[in-house]
Amino acid sequence: MQLPSLQNIKTAHALIKPFIHETPVMHSELLNLKMGCQLLFKCENFQKVGAFKFRGASHAVLQLSAEEKKRGVATHSSGNHAAALAKAATMNGIKAHIVMPVNAPGVKIEAVKAYGGQITFCEPTLDARETTLQKVMDATRAVLVHPYDNFNVICGQGTACLELVSQIPEPDVVMAPIGGGGLMSGTCIAAKNSWKKTRIIGAEPAQANDAFLSFQANKLIPANNPKTIADGLRTSLSPLTFEIINSHLDELLTCSENAIVEAMELVYKYLKIVIEPSSAVPLAVMLEHREKFTGKTVAIILSGGNVDLKNLPF
Amino acid sequence: MQLPSLQNIKTAHALIKPFIHETPVMHSELLNLKMGCQLLFKCENFQKVGAFKFRGASHAVLQLSAEEKKRGVATHSSGNHAAALAKAATMNGIKAHIVMPVNAPGVKIEAVKAYGGQITFCEPTLDARETTLQKVMDATRAVLVHPYDNFNVICGQGTACLELVSQIPEPDVVMAPIGGGGLMSGTCIAAKNSWKKTRIIGAEPAQANDAFLSFQANKLIPANNPKTIADGLRTSLSPLTFEIINSHLDELLTCSENAIVEAMELVYKYLKIVIEPSSAVPLAVMLEHREKFTGKTVAIILSGGNVDLKNLPF
Repeated sequence: MQLPSLQNIKTAHALIKPFIHETPVMHSELLNLKMGCQLLFKCENFQKVGAFKFRGASHAVLQLSAEEKKRGVATHSSGNHAAALAKAATMNGIKAHIVMPVNAPGVKIEAVKAYGGQITFCEPTLDARETTLQKVMDATRAVLVHPYDNFNVICGQGTACLELVSQIPEPDVVMAPIGGGGLMSGTCIAAKNSWKKTRIIGAEPAQANDAFLSFQANKLIPANNPKTIADGLRTSLSPLTFEIINSHLDELLTCSENAIVEAMELVYKYLKIVIEPSSAVPLAVMLEHREKFTGKTVAIILSGGNVDLKNLPF
Repeated sequence: MQLPSLQNIKTAHALIKPFIHETPVMHSELLNLKMGCQLLFKCENFQKVGAFKFRGASHAVLQLSAEEKKRGVATHSSGNHAAALAKAATMNGIKAHIVMPVNAPGVKIEAVKAYGGQITFCEPTLDARETTLQKVMDATRAVLVHPYDNFNVICGQGTACLELVSQIPEPDVVMAPIGGGGLMSGTCIAAKNSWKKTRIIGAEPAQANDAFLSFQANKLIPANNPKTIADGLRTSLSPLTFEIINSHLDELLTCSENAIVEAMELVYKYLKIVIEPSSAVPLAVMLEHREKFTGKTVAIILSGGNVDLKNLPF
C-alpha cells in the first residue's frame, strides 16, 4: 500500500492554496493558566465550509483528469465531507452527487444545497447508502471521492498540519481527533517528517474507540455503531488510514462524553470561537490525562465548527 | 470641551500596542451572499479580556503619573470595563478597586478576581454604586477611570478603528454599537479623519435608544432604565461622548430585540465566533434596514465576546 509522503502533502498544498483559507493559530492566556500548559489551536473551524474536510475534497477534485471532471464526483455522507465535496466540485464547474440519509440534519442538507451539490436521499442505513451511491455512480459515471480512504484526500488533510509547521515553533505534542482517520493520517505524515521531537497523539471518544482498539491490537477493528456526541468521529478507520496511523502515532488516548462537553465549553469561553463536538476531543483527552501534558506546549488541530447552535450541549 | 484628535489616537496606539492584541478582520462568503453586501468584522471579541474595553483601560492606566500609579485606580462596573481595568492595572503592578453590584453575573465577578481586581460589593442601584465608589476612593485615594467619559479611554477605544484602517481598503460604511459611546466616539474620530467617503453609522437597540433620541434632539437625553438583551448598551452617553458622536456621526439606526438575537446567531453560524449580544447590534440594524446597505462594503466593529454560554438566546 503506497502511503503519502511529506512531499505529496507539499505538492497538494501548492495545488489547493489558492482555494483554501490559511487558518489562524489561536491561544488564550487564561486557558493556558487553567490547563497548566501552552495550548495552540489550529482553527480549521474557520476553513471554507467550516471544516478541514474542504482541504481533502478540493485536492481530490483538482487531481481529476479532464475526462473525470466531465463525469463529476460522488460520495455518501451526512456530514462535513458532503458540503466540502459539493463546494470543491461546483467551484471547479464539476457536478457533485451526494447521497444523504433522509434523517440527515436539516442544516447539513441546507449546506450541501447551498454549495450546489445534487442530493439523492436514501434510507438511513449503511447498506442503503452504499447501494444508492452505486446506483447514482452507475447512472452518472461520477468518480467516487471517499471521505478518507483516499490517497489524495489524505494529502489534502495533511496540509492543515503543514501550515501549522510554518506557523509555530516545534511543539512538545501535536494532537488531532480520530474519526475515519483522514485528518490524523495527514497530520502524522506532516508532523513526523517536519518536527524532530514532537509526540503525535491521537484523541478519540471512549464511546467510539475503534482506532484505540485497532492501535492496541495492531490490526484494524471496525467500530460497531458507536454512540458519541462527537458526530464526526463515529466512522471507522479504513485500511489506508489504519496503516498510516498505526505506523506513525506515538500514543492514542480516549476521553469521556462529559469531558467532550466540558472541553467544548472551555473553547467557546476562552477562545471565543464556535467548534463542533469532534473538535473538542483532544482538549477533552487533556482534561482526563492532565499529568501527561503539564508544562508542555501542545498544538491541537480543531477540525470544524459546524454544530447545531440551538442544541449546544453545555 | 477638548475632543480627541486622530493624532491622539495614534499616540495612544503606539503606547498600548505592546499590551493589546491586533485583532483580525473576518468575513464569510455565505453571509455576504445572504446579506447582499460585503461585510468585514473587526473581532474585538478576541481582544484581551474579550472586549475592546481593554484598549481604553490600558491606555488610561499607562497615562497615569508615577504618583497616581501608587494610588491605584477605581471604577464601578458590572461589565467588561471592570475586567479590563483590573487586568490593565495589575499588568502594570497597580491596584484596581472595582465596585460591583451584589447581583453582578458570577462570570463577571470571577473574571475581575482572575485579573487581580479588588472587589467591593454594593447594593444594585446607581446611587449605591456611586456612593460606594466614593468611599473606596476616599479610603484609597485611587484615581477614577470612568468607562467612557474619559479622554484617554476614548483615545484607547479609537485604536480599534485605527487598526481597521490599516487592515482594509476604505469601506462604504463603518458601524459600531453605541452604549456609553466610548467605542463609537473613538471610531468616529479614527474613521472620519482616515477615510474620505465612508459613512459612519451608529447602531443601538430600539429599547435603549438614548443616543438615537439625543442625536435627533441635538441634546443629551439620558437613558431611563432601558431593557435590552444587549447588556453592554444599557448605559447612557456622557457629555464628552455625546459631543463627539453628535458632531461626527452620519446616521444612527436602531433595531428590535428579535433582530439582535437573529444577528447574533448569524455571526455564530457563519463566522464561527462567539460574540455577546451588544456586538450583534450593527448587523441587527442591517437586517432591519437592508435597503441602505445593499451592494455596499460594510465594516463592523464587534465589541466583545463575554456572554453567558449557558443562556444563549437563540
